[in-house]
Amino acid sequence: MSGTALYDRVALVGIGLIGSSIARALRRDKLARHVACWSRRPETRETTRRLDFCDSVHDALADAVRDADLVILCAPLGANAELAAAMAPHLKKGATISDVGSVKQAVIRDVGPHVPEGVHFVPGHPVAGTEHSGPDSGFAELFERRWCILTPPPGTDQDAVARLTRLWQAMGSKVEIMDAKHHDRVLAITSHLPHLIAYTIVGTVTDLEDHLKREAADAGTIIDRAEIVKFSAGGFRDFTRIAASDPIMWRDIFLNNRESVLEMLGRLSEDLAALQRAIRWGEGDKLEAWFRRTRVIRRGIIDAGQAGTFAATEPEKP
Amino acid sequence: MSGTALYDRVALVGIGLIGSSIARALRRDKLARHVACWSRRPETRETTRRLDFCDSVHDALADAVRDADLVILCAPLGANAELAAAMAPHLKKGATISDVGSVKQAVIRDVGPHVPEGVHFVPGHPVAGTEHSGPDSGFAELFERRWCILTPPPGTDQDAVARLTRLWQAMGSKVEIMDAKHHDRVLAITSHLPHLIAYTIVGTVTDLEDHLKREAADAGTIIDRAEIVKFSAGGFRDFTRIAASDPIMWRDIFLNNRESVLEMLGRLSEDLAALQRAIRWGEGDKLEAWFRRTRVIRRGIIDAGQAGTFAATEPEKP
Repeated sequence: MSGTALYDRVALVGIGLIGSSIARALRRDKLARHVACWSRRPETRETTRRLDFCDSVHDALADAVRDADLVILCAPLGANAELAAAMAPHLKKGATISDVGSVKQAVIRDVGPHVPEGVHFVPGHPVAGTEHSGPDSGFAELFERRWCILTPPPGTDQDAVARLTRLWQAMGSKVEIMDAKHHDRVLAITSHLPHLIAYTIVGTVTDLEDHLKREAADAGTIIDRAEIVKFSAGGFRDFTRIAASDPIMWRDIFLNNRESVLEMLGRLSEDLAALQRAIRWGEGDKLEAWFRRTRVIRRGIIDAGQAGTFAATEPEKP
Repeated sequence: MSGTALYDRVALVGIGLIGSSIARALRRDKLARHVACWSRRPETRETTRRLDFCDSVHDALADAVRDADLVILCAPLGANAELAAAMAPHLKKGATISDVGSVKQAVIRDVGPHVPEGVHFVPGHPVAGTEHSGPDSGFAELFERRWCILTPPPGTDQDAVARLTRLWQAMGSKVEIMDAKHHDRVLAITSHLPHLIAYTIVGTVTDLEDHLKREAADAGTIIDRAEIVKFSAGGFRDFTRIAASDPIMWRDIFLNNRESVLEMLGRLSEDLAALQRAIRWGEGDKLEAWFRRTRVIRRGIIDAGQAGTFAATEPEKP
């Protein structure tokens, strides 16, 4: 891909894991002639300057986005409305605004009203990341073989969509165009609900230690955190990794995809209650039937080549 | 370790992932002079003969355990009582019975009464495994750097415990001695509850597709399984792997560790309800505070060197 700049100037607004990974990928493959970065926090700007993965770091948002052909919002969802309003007067005619948020209807609601006449708006969501955050955790390969979902509202300029599609493809992603509402429901299942559950269970376990100690229960029932950590390879460890993701980002995801998350959570709670009852009443047949059914979807993931390779190197068990 | 046989004859009763992995490890490092295998199912015995990872495969349980110095029960928990009763008359004086079950009080309850005078009983639980099952999925390295927990009842012969400890260490495990009740509570948290949650969420999602189709909901809300599979890298994929584990084994774990699992599940449900309420009422502070707290325990796991290495190769995100 080297040498084929797809944009003249790209501005990244917010420099965390995703923003800094985009900057690194753009620079490595020379996908933009100039990459400008802005972050709200002075410390982040300083780190960005030191790490030297972009062409300019700006203290003022207006200076970062001025003359940009593409502006990508990479801040937590909750910051979007304010950022969009602040940068609107400084945007170039014909520029494209995009973002990387995990909820798309909320981005359209918050950013859409501030998009000036003659500026294109193509919301996006790279389904990639790690449990680490901040500009020092990014890397150019983050988006390789990952999906990037674009959710342009009806009537969006098709050339703007096509150009952004090529950019994500150049960074190694597979691109899918989707309706924003549909995106939010699919991601509520594949990502938001799993994260919520992981956060819940890790919190429940963290509290358990303190509670059992306070109750001065008999020695056999006291469990300390060191033991939980020690035997976490049995399944819990996977949840702790998911639950180590950025707290602000996830707070904003749940607040902004409330409807879909609550619907999925309602379904989950009912099923959990049914399994709880089956355990209490010793209904082995029900449990076994449920557990057999869940193998099918895993098989689908393996067949689709989405399974990853860690199973072979990271054996797990009860 | 080669050449230092710790037992003359080891009998493995049940040849799935764990049993066949033990057989392979024993043979590779010559830890027993003879490894005898038995399985209830003729097809499993046939596969075991074909794969040739042990010295003898027996159609009759009595023939497998006769003259064994060590008998390890590797069948699902629910089969233990019957197997222990059937093999008891054929056990050699001074032999040791052990097992690999994920619940230890139930094993003591089911096997204990059948242990003949002069035979030692040292329950064990290797905290290792994969989501695959059956004799063809085992491998000799499965137990390396994994914990094996032994829960000998009070009064157990210390030499028998020490010898079995050396065997697990020779297979690469770190060994911990623990009270059976304590084991069951710790594993309820670190393994059983995470598996139950993973099974639940994967089942909920599997049902969702059918339900939405039956409701003939508007097109934007229809979600098909292919989409869930496609975007599963956002977190759901980890759950599907956990929920692909052996259904019979897990049925028996939940039925046999009912009390601890229900207690932990009760705590989890309360916390889930609290987070659900925080999302519904838009209480961002509560969500953020919860998500910050859960990072601490992950840090503990990384510091303890239990984090594994897949995070680096398998980036995940919303």
